[in-house]
Amino acid sequence: MADNGTVKSTSDSGAHTNTAEGPSKSALKKAEKQAKMASDKAAKAAKQASVAVVGGKKADSELTGITSKKAENFPDWYQQVVLKAEMIEYYNEISGFFILRPASMYIWNVIRKWFQERIEAMDVEEASFPMFLSAKSLEKEKDHVEGFAPELAWVTKAGDKDLEVPVAVRPTSEAVMYPYYSKWIRSHRDLPLKLNQWNSVVRWEAKQTTPFLRAREFLWQEGHTAHLTEQLAGKEVLEILELYAGVYEELLAVPVVRGKKTEKEKFAGGYYTTTVEGYIPSNGRGIQGATSHCLGQNFSKMFDIKVENPDAKPEDVDKHVNVWQNSWGLSTRVIGVMVMIHGDDQGLVLPPRIAKLQAIIIPVGINKNTSPEDKKTHYDTLQKLKDTLKKAGVRSDYDIRDGYTPAWKFNDWELKGVPLRLEFGPKDAAASAVSYARRDTGSKGTFPIASLAIDVSALLETIQKNMYEKAEASFRSHRIIVKEWSEVVPALDSKNVVLIPHCLEEKCEDKIKVLTTGKPDETAGPAEAKVPSMGMKSLCIPFEQPEGIELGKTKCLNPECSADAKEWCMFGRSY
Amino acid sequence: MADNGTVKSTSDSGAHTNTAEGPSKSALKKAEKQAKMASDKAAKAAKQASVAVVGGKKADSELTGITSKKAENFPDWYQQVVLKAEMIEYYNEISGFFILRPASMYIWNVIRKWFQERIEAMDVEEASFPMFLSAKSLEKEKDHVEGFAPELAWVTKAGDKDLEVPVAVRPTSEAVMYPYYSKWIRSHRDLPLKLNQWNSVVRWEAKQTTPFLRAREFLWQEGHTAHLTEQLAGKEVLEILELYAGVYEELLAVPVVRGKKTEKEKFAGGYYTTTVEGYIPSNGRGIQGATSHCLGQNFSKMFDIKVENPDAKPEDVDKHVNVWQNSWGLSTRVIGVMVMIHGDDQGLVLPPRIAKLQAIIIPVGINKNTSPEDKKTHYDTLQKLKDTLKKAGVRSDYDIRDGYTPAWKFNDWELKGVPLRLEFGPKDAAASAVSYARRDTGSKGTFPIASLAIDVSALLETIQKNMYEKAEASFRSHRIIVKEWSEVVPALDSKNVVLIPHCLEEKCEDKIKVLTTGKPDETAGPAEAKVPSMGMKSLCIPFEQPEGIELGKTKCLNPECSADAKEWCMFGRSY
Repeated sequence: MADNGTVKSTSDSGAHTNTAEGPSKSALKKAEKQAKMASDKAAKAAKQASVAVVGGKKADSELTGITSKKAENFPDWYQQVVLKAEMIEYYNEISGFFILRPASMYIWNVIRKWFQERIEAMDVEEASFPMFLSAKSLEKEKDHVEGFAPELAWVTKAGDKDLEVPVAVRPTSEAVMYPYYSKWIRSHRDLPLKLNQWNSVVRWEAKQTTPFLRAREFLWQEGHTAHLTEQLAGKEVLEILELYAGVYEELLAVPVVRGKKTEKEKFAGGYYTTTVEGYIPSNGRGIQGATSHCLGQNFSKMFDIKVENPDAKPEDVDKHVNVWQNSWGLSTRVIGVMVMIHGDDQGLVLPPRIAKLQAIIIPVGINKNTSPEDKKTHYDTLQKLKDTLKKAGVRSDYDIRDGYTPAWKFNDWELKGVPLRLEFGPKDAAASAVSYARRDTGSKGTFPIASLAIDVSALLETIQKNMYEKAEASFRSHRIIVKEWSEVVPALDSKNVVLIPHCLEEKCEDKIKVLTTGKPDETAGPAEAKVPSMGMKSLCIPFEQPEGIELGKTKCLNPECSADAKEWCMFGRSY
Repeated sequence: MADNGTVKSTSDSGAHTNTAEGPSKSALKKAEKQAKMASDKAAKAAKQASVAVVGGKKADSELTGITSKKAENFPDWYQQVVLKAEMIEYYNEISGFFILRPASMYIWNVIRKWFQERIEAMDVEEASFPMFLSAKSLEKEKDHVEGFAPELAWVTKAGDKDLEVPVAVRPTSEAVMYPYYSKWIRSHRDLPLKLNQWNSVVRWEAKQTTPFLRAREFLWQEGHTAHLTEQLAGKEVLEILELYAGVYEELLAVPVVRGKKTEKEKFAGGYYTTTVEGYIPSNGRGIQGATSHCLGQNFSKMFDIKVENPDAKPEDVDKHVNVWQNSWGLSTRVIGVMVMIHGDDQGLVLPPRIAKLQAIIIPVGINKNTSPEDKKTHYDTLQKLKDTLKKAGVRSDYDIRDGYTPAWKFNDWELKGVPLRLEFGPKDAAASAVSYARRDTGSKGTFPIASLAIDVSALLETIQKNMYEKAEASFRSHRIIVKEWSEVVPALDSKNVVLIPHCLEEKCEDKIKVLTTGKPDETAGPAEAKVPSMGMKSLCIPFEQPEGIELGKTKCLNPECSADAKEWCMFGRSY
């Protein structure tokens, strides 16, 4: 557990390491001891995978792994993957809360580091504001509050005393931070002000929760910036959005569509919201990836954040101007999207760039008939292979757990999503080669030991690239331009999201949702097998617009709407 | 604000940079523009320091800085330093909460990175548990709960609905985490389990709050580990304690005494608590630095965390054993201790290793009579000096804000605690030298430009070392061995902490506190000038014990105690 199921390196035990003092006389004895320890670990790992272990041995037939098929019961499959790959534990004490285990936190920390470096280069600084907000601050911004009010967790007591004024746990920090922006920003010379914090927020959702995707508490970063002009604010909104796209595309190998939210779907109280939207092939649903909002001057008017306008004209009566604000956030949701897109019936499939363990080396062809000397020699080579990979920056380990067949180990590491398996047996040793199997495709081959580090590094990059390409092709082929209303629901039923000409009006969106909601009799059959019958909602107005809308001529696709279409809007069933 | 008062590098404006395309023809014009921008920034900085600026100019006489003397009104001095150096903002909405501004978060992140690397090397993994705990979990551990109950913040409502079962915000996470330790730890092969999380916790203190030192919410890390034996747990307790000492000594240049808490002062519900204790010379108070607890088997019994004992004997009826647990935490309090110890009447004094800006380069001897060409040449050299320092890993910047005298800038950077000031004027340029002034001692000198990087790096290390040595000498000389009761109060009044022979009994400690509490008439005089009259309490039983206690012979120093002394115990007035 403590090492997240990764087989511990033996570098500190000395069993397979020739130390500076030379090979130890008792190296063989140590190797045996090491094997014993590894055996213990194996039993532990087996238990974690719900496999009965008898006397430290197990039969492959006992291996259960993921018992639902991704294509057949996607929700159950997902739940099993995040649980059995030890990413998540359900917090039984309070429903809707989850424990992020080390396998998740490693990924979140890779993302955090990547994003943090880039916003630092944009002169964004880190701050830490309190987790509570007072009812007073909340009241300043009605639209914003209305959006969050039903989900606010209220602290009303401290110890056994009632608080004079209850305080709410932040669902987001606009109302916590902006009174201080008002205090700190007194002159246009104080602009831009750019702060970010990494924290958790609480939204007491009534909807069903799902690990990573929707939880009552989640980790995120929230950036809050203030600028002198709309143009400066708008530029940053897009720079941040591009970083969010980068998290998905470059780290998680997940394609996203960049766009703008409709008025109906934008951030409560904001001016406009930009978004990166993802797509889950298994159920054809869209999913909001991350959002970068321009708040306009709405909050700065409520919170009285203004400066003397350096461009004021002599005739201006009021020479002050309210600042332009942005806020932007990326949450641990990204991890769930990644799991849903890449995982398969064997379990998790991790893109190499965010995998804690990129390559697992598994000895094969070692059995009861292998002499202790041969075994030791073979295991020593495993350490050398690992050292070689480490020098090349590849995060690898070897699995010398005793009492487990190679096939069992293969399954175990596949469940945990390790991108590359390296197999090494006496035959490989004789050929100075290492066999490999890719987690993403299952394809196999061999590498000469002489070029192992280069070959593995290159293959990991290829895997990263291929995983993205595969997901991108899937999203592309299920993002369909629809020009006839009658084609909309069939397209949704075939797990597509659709691009339709749309008037962008809120009421029309409401109507579209109703019109596309399936009737009960249309959705008969086993619950877990059927495509959701929910109505579709707008995902975004993509920045990349198809051609074909003639303003003033093309009508909104909604048959009950008589308005002109303004843009192509992406709609879909969604999370 | 956005750049925390640091003068922005001009590298992106090109004003003082010879780019790859060669010096720009309009470089001079740009330099002027840059100066204008810098002037704006200066006005902003001045405003932050509460200095009136007229027409972008200011008179040195207007500079106020810290208006209380550290020796005269220490509490006010401290509050002014953390506010004016922009480390803290008071959260007026809810009392007892503080905003950590970028100047604080930079330091916390240096500490976080340093500590994180070291616990990773100990195979501690990161996790993230929910911020709430249920009343049910709390009830499992009575002693522990009693300690925290008065400070628990209770969420009783979500939206406008009452929760069926109220939940408390974690004051620490034992009761949140250990039900899962019980679930995850089923065999001795699952041990050790070592998890850490970086988060904030809430303790609704009734006592007066102080920035960093005591807040109702604070950032910290909390490590929670489980081991098979007392010995393994105990080994880790000390390893972590040594890392905590390292944060103070190596990063913050703050000396600490390592020791064990008495029964009275140990962690509620734990087995024993080890601690690093600091000392604030200005008021002679001790301050708990960070604690590493062995919880023993207390929690594992409550939460039913047990494994089959691998060393069980055939005759053992119960072959199970409860695991041995530790928990350990370090909070943002460390920053406050650092400020209190190193700061002076001019403001913050930062140890170089945790300073975001280690050296500030200030041009001198440039005035109205300087030709634009000479000014440009001089400013170009500033950029070169900065580049040279950057290559050597020194975090530096230059301050070319117009409209401010060098003396004003000196004061401004002193307030913010920058360890080293570099002055560079035409005379320095002619001599190929740079003048310097140390923030910690005020001592001055010159460096040849030829060896600038080496000299500055070396001096920064010297400053770090000297700051530690100075603080260490102060603590050492105020840590007094006292063998006569009559000397105790006078020693406290002289701002010492005392080492006394002690029986280690809780009741005796209570009595000692009463006996050493000053009477009202003894504490006349202006409130801010007097030494606190609070009674003393035990700080720790130092691991390094003086000689002189003969067990069964030496008596406890408390005149109303008849018990034998067990050890030398450090007592003091304390935070």
